[in-house]
Formats: sequence, structure tokens, C-alpha cells
Amino acid sequence: VDTWALRWLDPPDGPAVVLLDQTRLPAEETYLTCTDVASLVDAIGRLVVRGAPLLGLAGAFGVALAAYRGEDVAQAADALARARPTAANLSWGAGRALAAYQAARWNGATTPLNAERIAGRAALAEARAVAAEDAAASAAIAAHGLSLVQEQARILTHCNTGALVSAGEGTAFAIILAAHRAGRLAQLWVDETRPLLQGSRLTAWELETAGIPHAVIADSAAASLMAAGEVDCIVTGADRIAANGDTANKIGTYSLAVLAAHHELPFYVVAPTSTIDPETPTGADIPIEERSGDELTTRFVARNPAFDVTPASLITAIVTEHGVRQPVAP
Amino acid sequence: VDTWALRWLDPPDGPAVVLLDQTRLPAEETYLTCTDVASLVDAIGRLVVRGAPLLGLAGAFGVALAAYRGEDVAQAADALARARPTAANLSWGAGRALAAYQAARWNGATTPLNAERIAGRAALAEARAVAAEDAAASAAIAAHGLSLVQEQARILTHCNTGALVSAGEGTAFAIILAAHRAGRLAQLWVDETRPLLQGSRLTAWELETAGIPHAVIADSAAASLMAAGEVDCIVTGADRIAANGDTANKIGTYSLAVLAAHHELPFYVVAPTSTIDPETPTGADIPIEERSGDELTTRFVARNPAFDVTPASLITAIVTEHGVRQPVAP
Repeated sequence: VDTWALRWLDPPDGPAVVLLDQTRLPAEETYLTCTDVASLVDAIGRLVVRGAPLLGLAGAFGVALAAYRGEDVAQAADALARARPTAANLSWGAGRALAAYQAARWNGATTPLNAERIAGRAALAEARAVAAEDAAASAAIAAHGLSLVQEQARILTHCNTGALVSAGEGTAFAIILAAHRAGRLAQLWVDETRPLLQGSRLTAWELETAGIPHAVIADSAAASLMAAGEVDCIVTGADRIAANGDTANKIGTYSLAVLAAHHELPFYVVAPTSTIDPETPTGADIPIEERSGDELTTRFVARNPAFDVTPASLITAIVTEHGVRQPVAP
Repeated sequence: VDTWALRWLDPPDGPAVVLLDQTRLPAEETYLTCTDVASLVDAIGRLVVRGAPLLGLAGAFGVALAAYRGEDVAQAADALARARPTAANLSWGAGRALAAYQAARWNGATTPLNAERIAGRAALAEARAVAAEDAAASAAIAAHGLSLVQEQARILTHCNTGALVSAGEGTAFAIILAAHRAGRLAQLWVDETRPLLQGSRLTAWELETAGIPHAVIADSAAASLMAAGEVDCIVTGADRIAANGDTANKIGTYSLAVLAAHHELPFYVVAPTSTIDPETPTGADIPIEERSGDELTTRFVARNPAFDVTPASLITAIVTEHGVRQPVAP
């Protein structure tokens, strides 16, 4: 399973991970070819490839790339896992491919030259399994999530959670697509999602392609739409879900959750179980990435946290491929 | 009293209103000379001149310009009042100068040629009085508002409320300046204020000039700063305050008020009494300007309300030149 946003290529001169450069969308559809882990780690940091599920694929295929290229695979997995701190999927995906590599390597320890090749294939097979599972999870998420969407629904979403971040149709976006296909979607409000505009650059582009009625809004306009009765529910993705249900996601998500509670609107978080990190007890334990203030303003001092944490108590339900967990808080 | 942002010029070839073009700040400090009311109305619509108190001046000086230029003064006052719908000060300022013009015109009805000149001077004198009163109001606001600021305060503000919108030092910004001078300001968080970035373009620029510690944030990051305990109070301006205390201000203000209530933080609205409109009973009666979606995205469909309404129940106090009204809601 290869995705549009991330593909494994294996030409005669050696394999590569090819990324759709999401920093240039929608103006240009260009691709970046990473032939070593260092360039992939750099691309992850620059958000050429982004979004929790897709970062799982990037981590896994990155480990396979290291194995095929003869790089130190454990070191590569570590570098990939650290490329960005918040999304759980990145280290999870890298860890899965590394474990597959190491198991194969250990089994073939007596014939080292051949074992290296076999272990590389095992890592790649595992990366492809991660992608296939993500595609299946996306479809299951859409089916489960559709049950939460009423007729003539006006949904508000944040950031980008579609095919650009998934081997399938995405997370929150997959539910929105399912609602549209079921004829239940009356309007979709798209937070532009400052500072990097994943909403107005990426989500609006995917919506236009899918022919779904939508309108981009300033992030700060969501509250007044809720007050005016023009929003029925809020649906977002997640970058890491702690064991207690606290959820880190794109900056602004927590703001929406507080606003949803104030306006008595349901607030749904949508993610594959690969985003759930049982080793992170609560939201307070999730590292929040601080990105350069230049993403906001190059002239003045700025503070630019890329994510925030929404406590489980403000989340109406979490949708995964296994179903709808509601209530979230114990 | 002439301000930096709006000046009356009276060269031999006829008077003009000269505006600092706020759409080009901070990159360029350029001035636009309006020699008739039509060009001033256009400039108001394009936000060359903006901010509630300054719009009061623009309305008043615009009427004086009409009188000096021999335009239909009542028609000019009407066009100015309608140039933007939300800020109360615009029609209030135009109305004051028109009333002064009409009173002088009526008194001098027997000698029409001279009376026209006298009435024009009366309109200009009234516009200058509006400016002088605004400067005095700003100073009184700062003194009253300072009582609300604790030692080592971390204040969050939205949009731009400084010398760019006032014949004095502004509204909310005047309190921030007073707090800084009193040594009470530890940090100022500046919402960038999408879509037109009055925070990161204008407020940050004024803060840099004043040497005040600050950091620009994405509007949607305010919530997580509040949750982290890094904000002590929120201070904003107002575009129109209804008789019951409901307040229209830049889009995103209502969002901040809900977030402030959730985090049990004081939320202060700061405005001269010229922003209070006793003829508007409640926030539901305030017309909200919808601006072009192109301000958000030129490629996709967008919805772009320029203001929202914060109910009086979410406002801790309203500061005017007459003092601190607390509680606001009856």
C-alpha cells in the first residue's frame, strides 16, 4: 500500500521515500525524494510530510530506508522518532519497523550478509503493514464515526486530517467524507489553522476536489458561529492520546473544546489506535513542540506552540477503528 | 489636536484629511491625502484608517471636509456613517460635526455666503473637540484601568488599540502602557488577530517602539497559555457597546471572553463613552460587518465576519474615561 503523500520507490540505484511536499500545496504539487534518513528527518521537521497517521508511515518507511541503504538502523529509528516530539505515531511507526528488522536480523544471525538483506525486507514489509492497517483503520473510523453525525449536519473542523495524512481517507476527514456521501452534511466550517494554514491550504483543497460544501473561517471566528447556532458538532484529529484520554492536537484544538463545552456542542476526537500512547499517563506528560516564531511573524518576537492538550473531560467521544468511546473521561 | 494617524491639513488649494495608511504598516509608513469625502469613505472601507475612537475622528473631520469643500454636508455625514456598520464612533463623530455645522448654518441663515464659511469652521472646531476629548478620555482610561492591573501582570490583548486608533495613547493599549510605566507589566501576549493581523502588524510595532516586553501568538494559542497559568487578565477594546453592556469588537474577542470565563480570568473591555450606543439595546441589535473572504483566502470559499459580540455576562468590567463599571451585567 503506497499513499499519495508518501511512496516507497525502489529504482536500480537504490530505494527512496518520495514525499508530496505539503509545504507547497495548494500552489504546487511537487515531490521530494529522500534517499537517506537524514533528508527524511529534515523533511519531517519542515512539515513536508505531516499529520499523525502519516508520520507513522514516515517513521516505518524511514527505518526500511535505513536498512536498505546500510545505515545504522537503530540510530535511524531513534533519529526518526525524535524528528518531532508530539505525535505518538512517529516513534510508534519507527519502532514497529525496527522491531521487525531486529527480529529478522537476530533470526538470520548466522549468515550475516544475507541476514541484512532479509532484515531490510522485513522492515519494509512491516512498513507496508503499517500503511495497510492505517488504510483499514481509516475505513473503520469512517463507519463508526458516521453514527455520530446527524442529518443536515453543520460540522466544524480544524487543521488537516484527510488523505494527505493517511494511507486511507484520513481520520476526522474520513468521517466528514462519509457524512457527505450519506447525504448528511449540510455545511463544513474549516478553521484556517494558523500559523501554517493547514485548513485553508490543505483541507479546503481536499474538499474542493471532493466537491464538498465548505467555508474557510478565521480560527477565532469559530466561537461566534457556535453562538449563532451554525455549528452542530466539532470533529478533529489527534497527535497523541494519553492513557487517560487527554489529547494533544494542533494548536487551537483545546480552544475549540472549551468553546464547544460552553455552547453545549459535542466535541469528537478521531484517531487510529496507533495515536494512543499507553505509556503517556496524562496530557501533562505529552511534550509540546515549540516551533519557530518566524512561522507567525519574522519581524517581531513570537511564541509558537504547535500543539495544545485537551483534557478528556472536554471530549465527548473518541472515535478509533475499534469504535466510539463515550464517555472518554473515566 | 491632530493625531499621527489622521491629520487635518489646510493648504492654499483647499483642505484635506491625511491618513497614515495602516494597511501598509509596519513595512511602509505612507500617507494618503483625502481631498473629498468619497475618497475618505473609500479609505475607511479599506481600513486605511480604523479602530473605533479614530473612526469617530474620521467621521467628524470628514464632515468638516465636506463643509469646506462645498459638498452636501448631510449627505456626506450619512455616507461616512455608513462606511462601516459596526463601530458606534463613526456615525457618532459624523453626527457631532454635522450637528455643529447645522446649528451654525441655521444661526447664520440670513447671510448665506458667510454662514457657509462659519458653519464649516464650526464643523472643524467640533471635529477638533472630538479629538481633544478622545485624547483626554484616553488619559483618564489609563488612570482608571491601571487600578485593575496587579504587580507582575501577564496581560493578553487582541487587535490594535494604541495610538494608531486614538488622539491619545489608545484604549486597552493605554492601560498596558500605564502598567508598563508603573513597572507592573511582566509580559504582554499579543494575539496576531487574523485575518488582517492588526496584532502582529500594528500592536507589536507600537510595543517595539515603546520598548514593552511582548510576544505575538496565534489567536488559537491563547487558550493553552491560559490553561498553563501564563495569563493574568485579558484586555481588549470595543467597537460598539450596547445599552446592556454587550460588546462588539474584533472577531475573536468573544472567543477570548469564553476562554477567560472557563479559566476564571478577568476579562476587561476598554473604550471611551463615545463607543457606548444607548440606542442599541443589546448585542443582538449590533450589525456585524461581513468582509470579503479574500482577506482569508483568495482561492477557496470563506466566511469572514469582522466582529463578534461578547455578552455583558462574560465581561468582568468595562473601563471608560468615567471609571470602572463592575459588574457590567445588571
